[in-house]
Amino acid sequence: MLSTTPRTTLGREKHRGSTDMNDLYEVLDTGLICHLGVVVNGCPIVVPTGYGRIGDILYLHGSTGARSLRAADGAEVCVTVTHLDGVVLARSVFNHSVNYRSAMVYGRARLVTDPGERMDGLRALSEQLAPGQWEYARQPSAKELAATAVLALSLEEASVKIRRGGPNDEEADHALPIWAGVLPLITTWGEPEPDAALPEGVETPVHILRRE
Amino acid sequence: MLSTTPRTTLGREKHRGSTDMNDLYEVLDTGLICHLGVVVNGCPIVVPTGYGRIGDILYLHGSTGARSLRAADGAEVCVTVTHLDGVVLARSVFNHSVNYRSAMVYGRARLVTDPGERMDGLRALSEQLAPGQWEYARQPSAKELAATAVLALSLEEASVKIRRGGPNDEEADHALPIWAGVLPLITTWGEPEPDAALPEGVETPVHILRRE
Repeated sequence: MLSTTPRTTLGREKHRGSTDMNDLYEVLDTGLICHLGVVVNGCPIVVPTGYGRIGDILYLHGSTGARSLRAADGAEVCVTVTHLDGVVLARSVFNHSVNYRSAMVYGRARLVTDPGERMDGLRALSEQLAPGQWEYARQPSAKELAATAVLALSLEEASVKIRRGGPNDEEADHALPIWAGVLPLITTWGEPEPDAALPEGVETPVHILRRE
Repeated sequence: MLSTTPRTTLGREKHRGSTDMNDLYEVLDTGLICHLGVVVNGCPIVVPTGYGRIGDILYLHGSTGARSLRAADGAEVCVTVTHLDGVVLARSVFNHSVNYRSAMVYGRARLVTDPGERMDGLRALSEQLAPGQWEYARQPSAKELAATAVLALSLEEASVKIRRGGPNDEEADHALPIWAGVLPLITTWGEPEPDAALPEGVETPVHILRRE
């Protein structure tokens, strides 16, 4: 069960909310980037960034020099992951909508200092963005690790919203001779584009070629 | 030229920054949703929502009852639009990255009260999400208009970051027998899915069928 704190309790469109942890995991695990919100000098900053999940902890990372990361350490943050699945075309402009799956996680971010947890978090981040690459590519050196800050955020306070299906038109609009329905948005992987400097004979590994 | 205030001046990866207004327009005009950051009780909230642009003003809208909209009125907000174009697979885990185009707009949101500007803003929002639908679908009634809040945000303070191309590996890693390159992410429109309640003979209009 997801939490029901004031900020995770939906004020509107309650029917689109889910309190199922599995919905939260599904939205998070199928995403590539999140939008991280932090407050700097009283103003919000929203930064797109990578993330990974282990159990009920979300991991974020960045350069130790990044402003957004420095602002997030120990501070209240909001991490939002959104999948846009289609545009909902209604008979009225007002009832247009989008089909989406979205998760919002709130809480105080914690700078991870334990070396083991840092490695686990970085592996989760790497595997989220590029599954199979942690084992396949060269792993981080001590110098690279030192340049990377890892933040942890508990999933304790989170909400999920999902909209699926066709338009919710007014009954009176149904008779109008106006097309209505959904225009799905489809995201797929293209053909891998090899780096120009690749030595001859290095084949594209299956986990990249067949990524789903 | 984009602004060069402290928060729009990139602290890191300056080479990925653009100061060309046309890059800003391009990133905004090709997006479908933004992530709106507001501060509520000192904590950041990041909400996915629609937007539209007219000249150097961004329009946002929502139910007059939405918490995020109420928090944004007259307050500092951050609107971020991100396009994810691919995953950059490097020879080292550390140099993995993503190709993206991202715009961040900062400023104080203004509640639009002028009826003409409200209509223009709503049309821009509608056309951003579903081009051609403002003219095609039933336009808003007085009651629907009254339920909708429209916010304006100037593009005066904005930054754009763009990453394109292959991995930036360490020179020493180039000899490794590890595949490197880009796995492109492609977003396309699927086949329109007609609403079940559609009267017979209502054809899918060309602007939906042939959307680019």
